[in-house]
Amino acid sequence: MNHYGKHVNRLIEEFARLPGVGAKSASRMAFYVLNSPPERAEALAAAILTAKRESKYCKHCYSLSDDDTCHICANSRRDGTTIMVVESPQDMAAYEKTKEYSGLYHILHGAISPMDGVAPSDLRIKELLERLSDERITEIILATNPNIEGEATAMYLAKLLKPLGIKATRIAHGVPVGGDLEHVDSVTLLRALQGRREM
Amino acid sequence: MNHYGKHVNRLIEEFARLPGVGAKSASRMAFYVLNSPPERAEALAAAILTAKRESKYCKHCYSLSDDDTCHICANSRRDGTTIMVVESPQDMAAYEKTKEYSGLYHILHGAISPMDGVAPSDLRIKELLERLSDERITEIILATNPNIEGEATAMYLAKLLKPLGIKATRIAHGVPVGGDLEHVDSVTLLRALQGRREM
Repeated sequence: MNHYGKHVNRLIEEFARLPGVGAKSASRMAFYVLNSPPERAEALAAAILTAKRESKYCKHCYSLSDDDTCHICANSRRDGTTIMVVESPQDMAAYEKTKEYSGLYHILHGAISPMDGVAPSDLRIKELLERLSDERITEIILATNPNIEGEATAMYLAKLLKPLGIKATRIAHGVPVGGDLEHVDSVTLLRALQGRREM
Repeated sequence: MNHYGKHVNRLIEEFARLPGVGAKSASRMAFYVLNSPPERAEALAAAILTAKRESKYCKHCYSLSDDDTCHICANSRRDGTTIMVVESPQDMAAYEKTKEYSGLYHILHGAISPMDGVAPSDLRIKELLERLSDERITEIILATNPNIEGEATAMYLAKLLKPLGIKATRIAHGVPVGGDLEHVDSVTLLRALQGRREM
């Protein structure tokens, strides 16, 4: 369809490439841009370019940061003995929202997935092992996703860490808080049973 | 939250301003941009700026167009005796998708809405009346939205057009094709009954 001219169609196409954006949402977004003041369109375009150009990875944990060291790694009040390994900056942000974890993080930027051609060498695993030369570290919490790739990555890392004498732990599987048992899949129910604790 | 640094947070904020985009989608979109090649981010930013700067309104129907005259108004095979009045370019595109309407369009860019401070003078009504000096035009199809504002706008236009001796028609109300009667509201059911036709 070419009902809006090529410039608007191009914008709709570009928006439609974004994840979770279908043709209808893309056209709604394009018309929002067209109907808003020029400053808004310029602010959006500038935000895209600036985030892409200026954002960098923290040289310690490989989280996104404005500086070479992110605000978590730079915070001396965080517990430097524990590193939580996650797949993505979003996973880190999810754990930060709990406001209970005070250790450090390490972002792998993915999970091992032979199907998608992601090998251990594509992840920030070497960088994790380098961090272990810091003798304060006593525990690595493996908080990769609870799916096949995440489990495989956690198992791979646990095997790597064992000979180094560092405690590797895995976040618990179980029934999510606030859910109905009847809607929980049987593998999760089984894991919740296996992981039961005395009250 | 400031887990990703200010540049990424700014991008998430900008995406979240777009219609239908919540905090989670905005962060998913931002990470898509961050993880894609720089050319993709540049293409998106350029599309935003270009659409905003280069797109103009067709000087006849006020649809969006790359040129002064849109491809529909420029098409001599379209039926120049009929103008369909719609609220937005998206509504025009929706009717174009039916591939059955061969007349011209006129985009009002809104509907009369005292609640939102939209008066008739804020719409392209003067421009519609100017087009009527073309003596070929015999029918104006009022295809504003079937809501309060759209109905009010259609009634306002019908009253304006009547003294000019031009036939003003309104698109039919009725039950949508493919739906269940039990899910249709009673006003629509009543309109469908009133508008019944012999088979």
